[in-house]
Amino acid sequence: MNLTILGCYAATPRTFTNPTSQVLEIKNRLFLIDCGEGTQVQLRKNKIRFSRINHVFISHLHGDHFFGLVGLVSTFMLLNRITDLHIYGPKGIKEIINLQLRLSNSWPNYGLLFHELESKESEIVFEDDKVIVKTIPLKHRVYTNGFLFQEKVGDRKLDMNAVQNYEIDKCYYQKIKNGKDIILDDGRVIENHKLTFDPIPVKSYAFCSDTVYDESIIPYIKEVDVLYHESTFLDSEEVLAGKTMHSTAKEAATIALKANVKQLIMGHYSTRYDSIELFKEQAETIFPNILLADDGKSFEF
Amino acid sequence: MNLTILGCYAATPRTFTNPTSQVLEIKNRLFLIDCGEGTQVQLRKNKIRFSRINHVFISHLHGDHFFGLVGLVSTFMLLNRITDLHIYGPKGIKEIINLQLRLSNSWPNYGLLFHELESKESEIVFEDDKVIVKTIPLKHRVYTNGFLFQEKVGDRKLDMNAVQNYEIDKCYYQKIKNGKDIILDDGRVIENHKLTFDPIPVKSYAFCSDTVYDESIIPYIKEVDVLYHESTFLDSEEVLAGKTMHSTAKEAATIALKANVKQLIMGHYSTRYDSIELFKEQAETIFPNILLADDGKSFEF
Repeated sequence: MNLTILGCYAATPRTFTNPTSQVLEIKNRLFLIDCGEGTQVQLRKNKIRFSRINHVFISHLHGDHFFGLVGLVSTFMLLNRITDLHIYGPKGIKEIINLQLRLSNSWPNYGLLFHELESKESEIVFEDDKVIVKTIPLKHRVYTNGFLFQEKVGDRKLDMNAVQNYEIDKCYYQKIKNGKDIILDDGRVIENHKLTFDPIPVKSYAFCSDTVYDESIIPYIKEVDVLYHESTFLDSEEVLAGKTMHSTAKEAATIALKANVKQLIMGHYSTRYDSIELFKEQAETIFPNILLADDGKSFEF
Repeated sequence: MNLTILGCYAATPRTFTNPTSQVLEIKNRLFLIDCGEGTQVQLRKNKIRFSRINHVFISHLHGDHFFGLVGLVSTFMLLNRITDLHIYGPKGIKEIINLQLRLSNSWPNYGLLFHELESKESEIVFEDDKVIVKTIPLKHRVYTNGFLFQEKVGDRKLDMNAVQNYEIDKCYYQKIKNGKDIILDDGRVIENHKLTFDPIPVKSYAFCSDTVYDESIIPYIKEVDVLYHESTFLDSEEVLAGKTMHSTAKEAATIALKANVKQLIMGHYSTRYDSIELFKEQAETIFPNILLADDGKSFEF
């Protein structure tokens, strides 16, 4: 699992900082999460091939999370893309993109498939054989979802010594990997755990931005490997955080602690602060495993 | 008159090139012309104060000319702007911006005033005591206008020696500057040209992008001081230029020659070429006074 931060600052793009966008690579699939203005240039700078992006998740319709989407959609068109592009985002996103395409008299040759979200409950928005993506209902000033990306549990691993000892035919291997017990020709039943090891542990990533401090998200993100939780403000702006429905560094850390996640990545920093190190300092008083997102930074898990 | 090129490349923003946007300073007024994605960052990089921009002119609704507008409008809001912002552009621009503001539940505190254009004739879109701006109807794949910025002819200059010789009272000075003759107390009529010099010559700037080669624009841009004319392609892509309703370098130069402009600035280069110097080389075979636009470049006239 690899996470590349294209942008992780709140509000407006600036000379050296970008609004929210990140690329999650998981099981060889690439997911673009949010798409602030300038995302397509950040993709180029970070050498991420445009053709690998087939799924874009938009958390909410504040500009710093989606103003770059229409440009990306258009650029895909100019690059003669033919593969379908799936966009998952709040109701309204389709109207915004289509209106601009219609007025510019440009229509993509590729399939532009919108999956508009309006449920206030968590729902599965993407699923294939390796990965499942669910929404995490967040509380913000407009309808907002976080996204939980989970690898699916894979096959159990064959214990080759064991299967060979029992002289089990290869045609049963997949059945065994699927967890089934085996009946030998002589009638003996060999339990699956004698023939296999546990599958490789699966990874999970939760993206939660933007949100006020909200313990009701904990069940959705419980024990994830990596939680990206917004921390727009420092302690000194705690009241402002509540008023604007954002979180402070300590609040992000408290959620991480209560959800017992393995790793917290913080981001969506207000641009009012000179250094982002203070976010880490304040959060570490509550939760130990803190990483700071920054534009262009990649994390391997 | 000062022109700063924020972006002058066609199609998609890239790591080191930006789509169309430029700032014209004329008689101490600042006009933003087109607003491709990333314009607000280019404004920051070029140290142009956001608060000085009160008028934005959008030529047409292709993404590389307006995708940065909604972000700029939002940033003005976040910066607590209170001054009115006037946006001049094709019909539809208001719906595009307002839809996004409505769905993001953010409404500016400042006046956002749209002047939607749909006339196929040239019309005055802005006028104050010093400057007048008219549309230049262009032929492109969608409804498109260029813009002609003209300084207004100022007052005539007083010849102080002459007015003092005739012992003319100061209260008549403005009348004289306005071009009136003066009747002295003894009945003599002093013709204005004996009391004044010609006013400072006025400057004019024509922005023509995007457009196919089209001689019908010549009457509007005749003898302007500076013409910015798109030159998307080189000679080798002449057929493609016609098909996509763009111009080649030589076509831009031919328009400059036939309109007898003083200076041609070329831009809106296709990103397929490794160097923009070839545009100049080809255009100079037709017209001598060529400057190449480039991102971050400023021109004084």
